[in-house]
Amino acid sequence: MENTVIKGRLEKLRAKMLENGIDYYMMPTSDFHNSEYSADFFKVREYFCGFDGSNGTLVVSKDFAGMWTDGRYFIQAENQMAGTGVELFKMMNPGVPTIEEYLAANMKEGQVLGFDGRVVSCSIGESLEKKLSKNKVTLKIDKDLAEEVWTDRPDLPCHDMYILSDELCGKSFKEKLSDVRKKMEEEGVKSHLLSKLDDIMWLTNLRGNDVECNPVALSYAYITMDEFYLFVQEKEVTQEVKAYCEKNEIILKDYHELTTFIDGLELSGDIMYDKRNTNFLTCKALLKKAESYKAELKNCNNPTEIMKAVKNETELKNIREVYLRDSVKLTEFIYWVKNNVGKIPMTEYTAAMKLDSMRAELPGFIELSFPTISAYNANAAMAHYEATKDNAAEVKAQGMLLVDSGGTYMGGTTDVTRTIVVGEISDEIKKHYTGTVSGMLQLANATFMHGSTGRNVDIFARQPLWEMGIDYNHGTGHGIGYVLNVHEGPQNIRWRFAKGAEEAVLEPGMIVSDEPGVYIEGSHGIRIENIVEVVEKENNSFGQFLGFRHLTYAPIDLEAIDTKYMKPECIKLLNDYHKMVYDKVSPFIQDENIKSWLKEATRAIG
Amino acid sequence: MENTVIKGRLEKLRAKMLENGIDYYMMPTSDFHNSEYSADFFKVREYFCGFDGSNGTLVVSKDFAGMWTDGRYFIQAENQMAGTGVELFKMMNPGVPTIEEYLAANMKEGQVLGFDGRVVSCSIGESLEKKLSKNKVTLKIDKDLAEEVWTDRPDLPCHDMYILSDELCGKSFKEKLSDVRKKMEEEGVKSHLLSKLDDIMWLTNLRGNDVECNPVALSYAYITMDEFYLFVQEKEVTQEVKAYCEKNEIILKDYHELTTFIDGLELSGDIMYDKRNTNFLTCKALLKKAESYKAELKNCNNPTEIMKAVKNETELKNIREVYLRDSVKLTEFIYWVKNNVGKIPMTEYTAAMKLDSMRAELPGFIELSFPTISAYNANAAMAHYEATKDNAAEVKAQGMLLVDSGGTYMGGTTDVTRTIVVGEISDEIKKHYTGTVSGMLQLANATFMHGSTGRNVDIFARQPLWEMGIDYNHGTGHGIGYVLNVHEGPQNIRWRFAKGAEEAVLEPGMIVSDEPGVYIEGSHGIRIENIVEVVEKENNSFGQFLGFRHLTYAPIDLEAIDTKYMKPECIKLLNDYHKMVYDKVSPFIQDENIKSWLKEATRAIG
Repeated sequence: MENTVIKGRLEKLRAKMLENGIDYYMMPTSDFHNSEYSADFFKVREYFCGFDGSNGTLVVSKDFAGMWTDGRYFIQAENQMAGTGVELFKMMNPGVPTIEEYLAANMKEGQVLGFDGRVVSCSIGESLEKKLSKNKVTLKIDKDLAEEVWTDRPDLPCHDMYILSDELCGKSFKEKLSDVRKKMEEEGVKSHLLSKLDDIMWLTNLRGNDVECNPVALSYAYITMDEFYLFVQEKEVTQEVKAYCEKNEIILKDYHELTTFIDGLELSGDIMYDKRNTNFLTCKALLKKAESYKAELKNCNNPTEIMKAVKNETELKNIREVYLRDSVKLTEFIYWVKNNVGKIPMTEYTAAMKLDSMRAELPGFIELSFPTISAYNANAAMAHYEATKDNAAEVKAQGMLLVDSGGTYMGGTTDVTRTIVVGEISDEIKKHYTGTVSGMLQLANATFMHGSTGRNVDIFARQPLWEMGIDYNHGTGHGIGYVLNVHEGPQNIRWRFAKGAEEAVLEPGMIVSDEPGVYIEGSHGIRIENIVEVVEKENNSFGQFLGFRHLTYAPIDLEAIDTKYMKPECIKLLNDYHKMVYDKVSPFIQDENIKSWLKEATRAIG
Repeated sequence: MENTVIKGRLEKLRAKMLENGIDYYMMPTSDFHNSEYSADFFKVREYFCGFDGSNGTLVVSKDFAGMWTDGRYFIQAENQMAGTGVELFKMMNPGVPTIEEYLAANMKEGQVLGFDGRVVSCSIGESLEKKLSKNKVTLKIDKDLAEEVWTDRPDLPCHDMYILSDELCGKSFKEKLSDVRKKMEEEGVKSHLLSKLDDIMWLTNLRGNDVECNPVALSYAYITMDEFYLFVQEKEVTQEVKAYCEKNEIILKDYHELTTFIDGLELSGDIMYDKRNTNFLTCKALLKKAESYKAELKNCNNPTEIMKAVKNETELKNIREVYLRDSVKLTEFIYWVKNNVGKIPMTEYTAAMKLDSMRAELPGFIELSFPTISAYNANAAMAHYEATKDNAAEVKAQGMLLVDSGGTYMGGTTDVTRTIVVGEISDEIKKHYTGTVSGMLQLANATFMHGSTGRNVDIFARQPLWEMGIDYNHGTGHGIGYVLNVHEGPQNIRWRFAKGAEEAVLEPGMIVSDEPGVYIEGSHGIRIENIVEVVEKENNSFGQFLGFRHLTYAPIDLEAIDTKYMKPECIKLLNDYHKMVYDKVSPFIQDENIKSWLKEATRAIG
């Protein structure tokens, strides 16, 4: 059946393309800052083709429309785009051209490729520009054609900003700014453009609410040796924020003025920026400016990235407290699930709601750090499974429920996964569960020398599974923000890196997830995730030894542990961990039933 | 006291420099191929300053002479250069300029830096050229001034080449050449210059004897799609080798003709070379030729490198056999040491001689694969300790003797280290020894997915030591040649890599050393080294799992093992290994005393 709605929209888009002299128009998924979640305002690709997955790029010409997405979404995209006339390009499948290849093969001399330069990363933009210049194709990147076609488009997110106190942050904006300027001096630059939202929030000690689950405001910052400009939407600036900015000599500029501002800049030296998270339009403006001054546009990792990743003492103290309180709630939730399954109506969705509401009771709760993943039995084997109110499996007294969840509080951002036994499970599941737990505990127990990266230690998490002939197709660990995004760099724990990818050294004060898993399609999915902090161990003539310390204290389900699949020292690690869980969590539990269940659930096993 | 000999030599050198219009003359350590050992012919730096360490570069001008070396050699260099007027530059010490920095600071516009372009690597040469071009300094690289000053200079090594049969190699030269040409096609080049001696030997199935302990002939090879040129010294070509070359259409050219040959080349396309092991003079000649044809000089890893590293079935079969026979000899040697220490005169040197002579008895013995390291007690803690006939410690019935040794045989090249208890040892030593053994066994027991590199698994070897707050300052493992060099790439096992360094994926059929250690200055040194081969394990929907299999079977000294420092599964690994050692080695041992000792030495411990 024909999808006349989409076809109509595409026709309008084509008319606008013609008006603007654009032959091909490209619409990717990102917002202006390459955030993890894009607000509805940015869902242009979905508007013009119907496909709403988290990754996809639509390309439209006079007589062609194609949408590129990855293997997770082939079926969904086919369904959602049925009758639209939009062709599906299955990324990475043999013989399927990339967008760049497609355009290079089809665009002719003199033609124009258009896209909104704010939603395309600098590296993709540069690569397209280079490739297509061979065809003498030019780019038009200053037009957001959706603006003129999409009449009922949602507004750009615009919510009040708020201030975190210096006491909560452990370091004032001015101190942080001084550290950034030191780095700028070291790099020999006179100014620095910062486009990464969580970096700007960390640096200013401000927060916002413009990206789902990320407490960030849409913003840019431009830093010189004596001035600090913050670009935000005027309506987001409350009286308190305004006063704070005045006090801290933060010069406020309108969010939409950035390009004009860059065009009018007077440079006194080189500019630093981070290509990985600056959009193409901004890059182009910076480059033009730098060239006109014969200055260098220096591509460096934002200095804020590593400063933000290494938590200070105040942050760590608060994080430890918040993780403990969050763990208590999770423990109570696990009890609730086990005690109620099979007795009350329970779906993946209602269970998630229950946990979310429990978290919301905690003091300082701001929001969830990501949408809670609640997946029952085989659903847990699907990497991007999302239960919704209308589409959620019933949780019965059989098998397991995987729950991956977290909250952002005044005092920290949490992330934790437990896979909860709700009924009978097979010996195979016990084997996989035991291997997963062993891996999590082994990694958390690692000793490593300063200079090690996540790649050096990753194998501790995978070893028990690899020895079973099982692997999990995701990283073992990621960094986590402080009252900020649940995923942040630069550190992570993986065994493979893309060629040329930088690996960050693990530094004391970093916090990182430790989350091995087993996923057997059509059968079951297991993931156990603790968050750990990097701590100093011995320092001697050999150097600085480091290790991890648990931040998460929630019971591991002993019903799924079979010690015959566990090395003696992993059994010891589990018993030691469970003793800590009981000692730390039980004082916060009022209900004697839960407390005595916890005692049993954290008993030493032999 | 003045060293008039060196001073006289330097005066003669300076006269030659003046004659040739050279203001600064640089003399590094390498031969023309960056081999691990340089023959006496190449010891120009030693001739002109007296310092004979394995790393050092001498720079001489009209009124200056400076020698750069690293921390291992500061004391030795000071002693050996006393009275020569040559200034010592302690590399990596704070405030000490590099050679490049020194030259950039001191050379003036229009001056000339000279060196023999054949003993300087392409990357160092290019870097100097770039840096000094800012001073308008030019390079003169076609003069080996030592030739004219050093009258009693030893000859360039020149020994008969010999042929390995196709049966021994498992693959004929023609088959290997066809594989190389396939790679050349893939890279889109029409010719390939090969400068790496062991690669040339591997490819041609020829061997030589021009580098200490490396069965290689000084040579270059130039490969086109239909011709194969081999540059060797004419005198090395025996009648057999000549006939072999004729039969295989190998066109023989004189070793010294390479540059002239390149100058006269007619190119039909791009040239491939490997910058890492092509000398600067050759690079320059290639570059000039490529430019004149507007061809590209394509820098790639020699395709032979990975082909040589992944052993074929014939090679593996022979290697396993040779390692077993070599292990038997080492086992008998260990018995000899333990049984004779304190009873007969024994020094580090005489013990090494004993082992060397035992190896020489084995069928197919060619030479040692490197000079045997025999180091008693505290001497074993010194990284580059070398006992000589005149300077060797007496081995008494106290402490330990570390022996790192190997041989090259028709059928394989071996490398093995054992640290032998010869008397009382402290509890601390037992702890360190037990940790070292645990590390070696854990790594050998690793399961890993295809795609892993040495960095992914290195931590298994270091973990027991890192947990004790101890590290060893060397790599854990290196590749080993087949009837070739004892050190070869591209794979290795390390935890740290230089920025941008390539890491090779571990492939089935590679062989690699596994050699953790503990070195306590002034006290003791322990290293335990087995060689292992990479083998396939399970292959399933998750991918290809790999592991290691031991090639070395010699007892680990139980007198130095204390199970209180050992995890239960490491005890099991040790017992399993010792059972294999006894089962494999004992059938080859005639002497019943040794056999019953071995039974006891490989007993299961609890």
